[in-house]
Amino acid sequence: MRDENIIPHDHAIKLDDRVKLGGHLPKLIWFTGLSGSGKSTLAGAFEVELYKLGYRTYILDGDNVRSGLNQDLTFSEKDRTENIRRIAEVSKLFVDAGIVVLTAFISPFAEDRKQARDLVGSKNFAEIFVDCPLEVCEARDVKGLYKKARAGEIPNFTGISSPFEEPIDPDVHVKTHEESLEESLSKLKSIILPKLAPSFPPGRV
Amino acid sequence: MRDENIIPHDHAIKLDDRVKLGGHLPKLIWFTGLSGSGKSTLAGAFEVELYKLGYRTYILDGDNVRSGLNQDLTFSEKDRTENIRRIAEVSKLFVDAGIVVLTAFISPFAEDRKQARDLVGSKNFAEIFVDCPLEVCEARDVKGLYKKARAGEIPNFTGISSPFEEPIDPDVHVKTHEESLEESLSKLKSIILPKLAPSFPPGRV
Repeated sequence: MRDENIIPHDHAIKLDDRVKLGGHLPKLIWFTGLSGSGKSTLAGAFEVELYKLGYRTYILDGDNVRSGLNQDLTFSEKDRTENIRRIAEVSKLFVDAGIVVLTAFISPFAEDRKQARDLVGSKNFAEIFVDCPLEVCEARDVKGLYKKARAGEIPNFTGISSPFEEPIDPDVHVKTHEESLEESLSKLKSIILPKLAPSFPPGRV
Repeated sequence: MRDENIIPHDHAIKLDDRVKLGGHLPKLIWFTGLSGSGKSTLAGAFEVELYKLGYRTYILDGDNVRSGLNQDLTFSEKDRTENIRRIAEVSKLFVDAGIVVLTAFISPFAEDRKQARDLVGSKNFAEIFVDCPLEVCEARDVKGLYKKARAGEIPNFTGISSPFEEPIDPDVHVKTHEESLEESLSKLKSIILPKLAPSFPPGRV
């Protein structure tokens, strides 16, 4: 609720202090792609790289969000939008905490992704298009979900009974059906890592 | 939604790795008390102490939660419970990220606070009762809210038109009308800091 009765309390520790402590900028790294495209795998592998650098990270994905914060939501289009809204809001809190947060959700609607970007601010946002043709994802069907979706057991399943709106100008575009995990990871590192370097050396804030 | 179609993805970086990186345990430090009792002030001051130790922290309060994630919620009893549920769920994510998260919400209902404790697990939870008599909070009325509540302009206002269920066995009990901020802070430090020390030295995971 946006409410005139909520009066801001100005806390002493600011984002700049957290950046100083962590030695890196925060970022919302938003992986989008079909089920089975490799979002979680890639996010997990990139998190390992960031961890090796001593960066503070966290992955938001269906496992920890759908079963907790968003357990009251269905997979209707309205609730999927609310799902993404809450993920974006939680990501904003993590970014404000100085964390590099990686989100791995199908997030098929361009408008929802734009809202996430707007919420945390463009400079704090990077869209990663984990591109893989539907046929390949469906052939992989690592979770058996496409089979269920084809059988009509899962309504509003992206790629089958609900659209996926491809990113037009993603910050990173990986093609998991053509590239190895190492190649995709290399793209991510070369584009994202420079954006995480603070403009001041540690201890200088 | 708890859904059989959500298949967990086992990420490589675990909480133990984050503890190793941060050098401290995560914790949900839950400040509860009347409006004007001093929750935010105390949480903010304690965060400074934690920051000086190099600990990763974050404060969740009305400013960053009610205006963002929970902007769809009213102040009805039902929505206030949902407000606290979401705060607890977000806190759980922060705890899983290795952060010491400090929450500063009135959180007047014992059952809601118990649910927060249950959600993150007792060992990760500390309840801080920021105790201050209603008369004192109302006399302070730093935000002018009690005046509005007495005038009937704010419904369900804790202490006036909605109950505050005092914690029976809080981890820390501070009395802001009797103690100085330094005294309250000293209590917090002596009880909470030992609980944040990892059971293994840094670099040993």
